[in-house]
Amino acid sequence: MSFIKIPTKGMRDFTPREMEIREYVLSIMKETYMSFGFEIIQTPIVEHIENLTSNQGGENEKLIFKVLKRGEKLDLEKATNENDLVDSGLRYDLTVPLTRFYANNMNDLISPFRAFQYGTVYRADRPQKGRFREFMQCDLDIFGEKTNLAEIELIEAIVTFLRRLSFNNFEIRINDRRILLAMIASSGLPIEKANDILISLDKLDKILVEGVKEELTRDGYDESKIDAYLKLFMEDSPLKEFCQNFEIDENIVNSLDEIMKQVSEDLDCKIVFDPTLVRGMGYYTGPIFEIRVDDLASSVGGGGRYDNMVGNFINQSVPACGFSIGFERLVLLLEERGFVIPSKKEKIAYVVSDKNNLSNALKKANKDRNNNQIAAVYYRSKNYKHQKEVLESNGFTIIED
Amino acid sequence: MSFIKIPTKGMRDFTPREMEIREYVLSIMKETYMSFGFEIIQTPIVEHIENLTSNQGGENEKLIFKVLKRGEKLDLEKATNENDLVDSGLRYDLTVPLTRFYANNMNDLISPFRAFQYGTVYRADRPQKGRFREFMQCDLDIFGEKTNLAEIELIEAIVTFLRRLSFNNFEIRINDRRILLAMIASSGLPIEKANDILISLDKLDKILVEGVKEELTRDGYDESKIDAYLKLFMEDSPLKEFCQNFEIDENIVNSLDEIMKQVSEDLDCKIVFDPTLVRGMGYYTGPIFEIRVDDLASSVGGGGRYDNMVGNFINQSVPACGFSIGFERLVLLLEERGFVIPSKKEKIAYVVSDKNNLSNALKKANKDRNNNQIAAVYYRSKNYKHQKEVLESNGFTIIED
Repeated sequence: MSFIKIPTKGMRDFTPREMEIREYVLSIMKETYMSFGFEIIQTPIVEHIENLTSNQGGENEKLIFKVLKRGEKLDLEKATNENDLVDSGLRYDLTVPLTRFYANNMNDLISPFRAFQYGTVYRADRPQKGRFREFMQCDLDIFGEKTNLAEIELIEAIVTFLRRLSFNNFEIRINDRRILLAMIASSGLPIEKANDILISLDKLDKILVEGVKEELTRDGYDESKIDAYLKLFMEDSPLKEFCQNFEIDENIVNSLDEIMKQVSEDLDCKIVFDPTLVRGMGYYTGPIFEIRVDDLASSVGGGGRYDNMVGNFINQSVPACGFSIGFERLVLLLEERGFVIPSKKEKIAYVVSDKNNLSNALKKANKDRNNNQIAAVYYRSKNYKHQKEVLESNGFTIIED
Repeated sequence: MSFIKIPTKGMRDFTPREMEIREYVLSIMKETYMSFGFEIIQTPIVEHIENLTSNQGGENEKLIFKVLKRGEKLDLEKATNENDLVDSGLRYDLTVPLTRFYANNMNDLISPFRAFQYGTVYRADRPQKGRFREFMQCDLDIFGEKTNLAEIELIEAIVTFLRRLSFNNFEIRINDRRILLAMIASSGLPIEKANDILISLDKLDKILVEGVKEELTRDGYDESKIDAYLKLFMEDSPLKEFCQNFEIDENIVNSLDEIMKQVSEDLDCKIVFDPTLVRGMGYYTGPIFEIRVDDLASSVGGGGRYDNMVGNFINQSVPACGFSIGFERLVLLLEERGFVIPSKKEKIAYVVSDKNNLSNALKKANKDRNNNQIAAVYYRSKNYKHQKEVLESNGFTIIED
């Protein structure tokens, strides 16, 4: 018998205690997002291998769990490489299936469409602390809204959600991909190298200005242009002032300013323009944003506008703006904080020693259940001391017959 | 670009309308089962191929979606068969992972352990109406309870759940695997052929007594013994009377009688002894049961006691009793009935035509959301007639500026 007790590499079992907080976070998320008019959609975990390897996923495409062809389609003799063996794989994010979903169902959807998708995704990454091969993603996306109303509603939904989970000390950082590009262009650096330059800029936090300068110099850019570029970041001024130092369409700046004003006015929360915010992905086309909480160095979530991606993918122009919250990080943070789930139901365990009292205990339990309580009936075990201990440590009040 | 719009074969996208009812059924299920002290656990969708092919899954083991080994482990040159290529697969049910989970976590669990697991499972079946390659399973199991308290609590939980979904005309059928065996033995039929004989008996509904007799005769059993066996089923009497016609341990009969009495007393529902109920799986060891509703020929769920399986699997004796509800069937039934989700939240769409009114609309929307309503803000689109139509058909009340 070759039965294996532990989960497959990098994947996890969740005990009832662990599930309790995961279910709670998800329920608050659903309630909040749905109150903003987002609608839940769901897609299969298994996706066409063609869609998963369409260059939409960057590095993640190297981490696909591939699913073997079945039946006659699998011809091991003739197979010369992996692609001959597989026809599907496990999704590595929710964006690829969302795009496919939108293309497949757009005629049945409200426009603009507010999508909320949650579910597990799979990456054959090297497992390490806090990184898993199966993990939850929770994405909010608005398709078909070209104005900054999309950004405002997205950010307000996330902020409302975080507050309902008792996160209060957080900061929203916001920038615009077009500001990042304008700064490069106006410094005389080559705009066609924008992605490379931004990869260096993105390290500012860690390697500081000197480090970024060193990298850009190593990459062969003109020193005076590098200096002009980096000098722009020295300015510690609000958005509009900051943007006077280089050439940029004022509509872009005004629109970003509107987002910041509206969100902070509506929800009284800290939203900061951060010209060094890059958010990796080259597919962003407009505002980008992320949220940081006090006790975590990295962000708990982020997103932005990606107007060209869906359109390119389905041969039809579709403005899009999305936000992904780091579900696993949030759960970990709450656990570390010793977060207590509010207003949990009362739990009652009827422990019966005389079989004649069973019927009575069952009736009482059913009454409790109808009164919105949790009730379970157990026979008294031989080792009652232990049984009592375990039940009590699981939050049960014990009633003996 | 080889982008494919439809989901992979036999799998489904779920639109917001479809998700609404799925989410509702699941939420009622969670609430009800948890009120009975069942605790939610979760296991990965990817399972060790060794566990999936351990002969626990019967025919389902032929339908596994197999996952390709990754990196250096995959050696296509040396591979001579499928097993050289794969190290894991997608679970085809929730019982294999539950068993693994129990073996892996038993020291941290309440005993007896009441597990509620829900999630998708995968079978590379030939797709057909109502049968899919990715579908939800929802299992309740009690591990460690050797008395009929397990059966009683399981059945009462299911009945309570079905009633909360407004299913009222249903019938619970119950039998005991040991009664099935005793009837075979006392008729003189060979007990070591019990599984074959029961496969024939299971067709009674379709091929009637004559058909069953014909099959058993063809299988070479003695005609007088076949007649004696089938004659037992002619008796249309209650459990205790019925069981007087063959030799059986009266404790078995009394225990089954207790279950029936207790459940019908507690919940005033129809629970019927059905000596022809077989429930396929040979692994059952005691009471077996299933639930039928009026408008569906087959059952919406079933289960039973399987005291030896977990024990065999983990080398430790563990009494077990489980029930699996047909989630997809229930959802389909509710859709066919035109089921309306009770007490849905009010949905308000603020449609803004003047940008200057946006801020005001956003504030009103946030107020609505805090008042437990659903609110979304939209700009008025060029084709307002269509926009209005779609919003209204999606249940929104429209407020214009």
